[in-house]
Amino acid sequence: MKLSKIVGERIKEAPAGASIKSHILLLRAGFIKQVSAGIFSLLPPAQKVSLKIQNIIREEMNKLGGQEVLFPVVMPRELWELSGRYGSIKSEMVRFKDRTGHDMVLGMTHEEAAVHMALNTVKSHDQLPFLIYQIQTKFRDEARSRGGLIRVREFTMKDAYSFHSSQEDLDNFYKKVYDAYKRIYKRIGFKNFVVVEGDNGMMGGKISHEYMAVTPAGEDSLVICPHCGHSSNMEVATSEKEENDTQIAGEKEEIFTGNAHTIEDVCAFLETDAKHACKAVCFKTETEGKLVIVFLRGDAEVNETKLQKLVQSELLPVDVEEFGLCAGNIGCINLNVPEGSFVFFDKTLQNLQNFVTGANKPEFHIVHCSFSRDLPQTTFVDVALVKEGEKCVHCGQKLTLTRGIEIGNIFQLGTKYTKPMGMKVTMPDGSNKEPIMGCYGIGVGRSLASIIEEKADEKGLVWPMTIAPWQVHFCPIRLDNENVSAVSDELYKNMLDAGIEVLFDDRNLSAGIKLTDSELMGMPIRVVVSPKTIANGQAEVTIRATGEQLFIPMGELISELKVLIRDEIEEIEK
Amino acid sequence: MKLSKIVGERIKEAPAGASIKSHILLLRAGFIKQVSAGIFSLLPPAQKVSLKIQNIIREEMNKLGGQEVLFPVVMPRELWELSGRYGSIKSEMVRFKDRTGHDMVLGMTHEEAAVHMALNTVKSHDQLPFLIYQIQTKFRDEARSRGGLIRVREFTMKDAYSFHSSQEDLDNFYKKVYDAYKRIYKRIGFKNFVVVEGDNGMMGGKISHEYMAVTPAGEDSLVICPHCGHSSNMEVATSEKEENDTQIAGEKEEIFTGNAHTIEDVCAFLETDAKHACKAVCFKTETEGKLVIVFLRGDAEVNETKLQKLVQSELLPVDVEEFGLCAGNIGCINLNVPEGSFVFFDKTLQNLQNFVTGANKPEFHIVHCSFSRDLPQTTFVDVALVKEGEKCVHCGQKLTLTRGIEIGNIFQLGTKYTKPMGMKVTMPDGSNKEPIMGCYGIGVGRSLASIIEEKADEKGLVWPMTIAPWQVHFCPIRLDNENVSAVSDELYKNMLDAGIEVLFDDRNLSAGIKLTDSELMGMPIRVVVSPKTIANGQAEVTIRATGEQLFIPMGELISELKVLIRDEIEEIEK
Repeated sequence: MKLSKIVGERIKEAPAGASIKSHILLLRAGFIKQVSAGIFSLLPPAQKVSLKIQNIIREEMNKLGGQEVLFPVVMPRELWELSGRYGSIKSEMVRFKDRTGHDMVLGMTHEEAAVHMALNTVKSHDQLPFLIYQIQTKFRDEARSRGGLIRVREFTMKDAYSFHSSQEDLDNFYKKVYDAYKRIYKRIGFKNFVVVEGDNGMMGGKISHEYMAVTPAGEDSLVICPHCGHSSNMEVATSEKEENDTQIAGEKEEIFTGNAHTIEDVCAFLETDAKHACKAVCFKTETEGKLVIVFLRGDAEVNETKLQKLVQSELLPVDVEEFGLCAGNIGCINLNVPEGSFVFFDKTLQNLQNFVTGANKPEFHIVHCSFSRDLPQTTFVDVALVKEGEKCVHCGQKLTLTRGIEIGNIFQLGTKYTKPMGMKVTMPDGSNKEPIMGCYGIGVGRSLASIIEEKADEKGLVWPMTIAPWQVHFCPIRLDNENVSAVSDELYKNMLDAGIEVLFDDRNLSAGIKLTDSELMGMPIRVVVSPKTIANGQAEVTIRATGEQLFIPMGELISELKVLIRDEIEEIEK
Repeated sequence: MKLSKIVGERIKEAPAGASIKSHILLLRAGFIKQVSAGIFSLLPPAQKVSLKIQNIIREEMNKLGGQEVLFPVVMPRELWELSGRYGSIKSEMVRFKDRTGHDMVLGMTHEEAAVHMALNTVKSHDQLPFLIYQIQTKFRDEARSRGGLIRVREFTMKDAYSFHSSQEDLDNFYKKVYDAYKRIYKRIGFKNFVVVEGDNGMMGGKISHEYMAVTPAGEDSLVICPHCGHSSNMEVATSEKEENDTQIAGEKEEIFTGNAHTIEDVCAFLETDAKHACKAVCFKTETEGKLVIVFLRGDAEVNETKLQKLVQSELLPVDVEEFGLCAGNIGCINLNVPEGSFVFFDKTLQNLQNFVTGANKPEFHIVHCSFSRDLPQTTFVDVALVKEGEKCVHCGQKLTLTRGIEIGNIFQLGTKYTKPMGMKVTMPDGSNKEPIMGCYGIGVGRSLASIIEEKADEKGLVWPMTIAPWQVHFCPIRLDNENVSAVSDELYKNMLDAGIEVLFDDRNLSAGIKLTDSELMGMPIRVVVSPKTIANGQAEVTIRATGEQLFIPMGELISELKVLIRDEIEEIEK
């Protein structure tokens, strides 16, 4: 491919509105163009990367016996009502009426479509297990699209669905997919990714894992155990909490705290540590508008995902005065809340003695409180965020926190879809049973962006050989020189004939512009020829990732490039 | 692939609601499943065919220098307002509001997106011409989806857009795409397709061609010149009309025709031929509700597509009494119509003498009319359907009519999109000019269905080798026999090792069921082994398309299959 003909332009400055590395570089290198919020066109080089990632995924899915299919983007309401998700998924799902007034949706995921395909076509346990998958466009009406291809509304996704006759069979298969996913990310070129336990969210089911590209640009907070490897998304992470002081408190006493409302202010005013405070954090449920109060130790934070599961509802901010409470002075002693309210005590409070809490009236708190003495019946639940340094529940070693981008996820779904949709297969004993399902997703564009977060440097993109748009960026200098031009044309032809994927910078521009563009675009190998290198009978080869430079005799260039390409692919895939 | 594991089932009876061959067979063979009106899931074998067709298209697009990109399915209203199509396209285009209330559409075609991609990224004539294409899902809310994959609402389409600095350059490039399309259909396996001049419809522009699979199941009426090859879609077809008798009429006279209202009844009543009648066909415009009257010779029919272009509006049925006319007795003499009405005279009436037409009052017609005498100022336009046997305007030979399915189309668009969207490139003389565009579409699913219409027989599907889901259907008989089972497992393994795409019917079922299934599914080569063929040291090979049978020594089977596969691919692609 000749660079002069590529649709897209390279720009020097970071475009307005882009703040994270992959977004900036994809725009600057002419790989993507925004069409609307969270909606992008992929220009030729990005589509090349996307297709290569898709092919890696396809190969690994096929190795698992996966059968590629295609589900529709547009589906009728009825299909989503069978699973109950037409109602349970909110404005993330696009709904519209077709010309006949029929309610339709844009598929954000295809569990229903997968069961619909298998319904009445798979009837016997002999046909199980099977895996069907597709690579297709999805649309999710994200409230906060951001970061270029990291969080978009429209995206290309591989989604796969497996069906099993027993939990044991699913467990076995799930493990195989778990490993296949690791191979996929490795082959894409990721070195720095982790698998964490995840939240099943709208999918349902119990067990799930998320594949996370570790990067400060990540939206997800991850809890990692460097010792035993058990890692989780913060949303579901647990930890062993620091043990609280069990020394009995003095007599409890109301004390004037004036305008001190935040826990920091109260503790500063009382000259005590937040670890000796019981604070209240309040919400209301989206579904029924009920009050939700979480009491936690003063230094802990609420894990909203866990709290949502406890109350089975989304959470909204609340004006506590509406519920008769005194904002800034809510406490766990003498609390009066309307019937039906939720009140939770986090495990960080367990056994806490001698603590301060709100007095449930203006300008006062109560000190010297004790759970064992004052609230002996309290049940403690796990509803706080894990903090750096807390201990792993599996091995007791200290946990660390990091950030990641979710590039894939796998779920065990149970019979959440097969049961309501009435899919049954005949078992060996003659009975009819709903198959147990797993589902497995990979975001193609998000993987593309995340590998940039891992690899790119201050000069630009750095593509792993396995997914690079072109393997070689061929960059002759001084194309106005007849000799350079003739040698370049021949080398380009020879590279093409040798099956090397090459981007030929055929522009007669300065070395500065051409070399800078090559670094920005990030092909793994750059080949430069110039009057000088030609006079020496050599080509200059630079490895983009390392900066390593080689001078290769012209006659050996093609064979040497083939070796370099093969070696890097083997290194990545080994 | 083992047949027992394929998702999908083969059924014997034609499913209710399916009437055309490809629809029936795709359902019966387990290739597709309907999800909603005009919306299908593709099961594994159909997706395999689809991917193979996509790859043929991709290869031919790349040979043209095409750059693969990806445009969004969901686009904002603003993009479509730039071209004016947000308003001009009606309920075929799905519109919805996103969660922020923004108007969005589902892309039915991507001219706007293509210009958006090139806008400000292609600035100089040096970058022209270029071709960008995508293979992507589209949704058109067809009023009458029908025929399985023939006319659907959701479909996979390759759409391509080229940009040029001059009409001459577009003409040259257009010719190349024209030829590439022929190669594509040939490689897919079509033997019976024609290229016809087409209607540009909502695309705009002047020149267009449609690639038509010729089949009685086609929705389009085609006008073919077997002599010079100039062929057209009936929508735009023209012909030399039979010359009318120029003998002067007698004196015109009102005559009682009573309840005879249709032209057939009037001519029968008057004992004259429809060729000596001038009939009226009436509509009203959708846009402004204006009356439209077309006068044609009694034996001609209105070409509504041409008429729509003349009045620049869709057409609706009309109650002529509302416009003060006398239904069944409308005539071209003494006609009174409201101001602003459209009145057309078709070329079939040119020079017509001695004809009958309505008297514009109940129960009467006028006979012995003459255009040259009674309506000497009349302008005649071409607004009738071409009839079998009329003459080619290019060579004067007789035209024939046939039916076809549109499997692709190519258009010259001019500056219909670049102009309103403000895309300009710098020309060699320093001026800025809007590039001239071409666009080029292929429906993947429709091609898949159309090849079935051409190839399939009463037993089932017949896949060309180039797009078959599997090249070989391996069908051992009596798998309960240990020897058959062992030989089959080994042959299957050998075929896989040899790179042969093989579907292995591993089910222990009767020969009847297995052979019938193989004919229904339609792989190009079937290999049968049974106790008898094994005893003879042979395998039985059957060519699906011809029924030809070969008995091949077991030791030569693999090499012979490779030859058969290679030969058929070469035969198709030559």
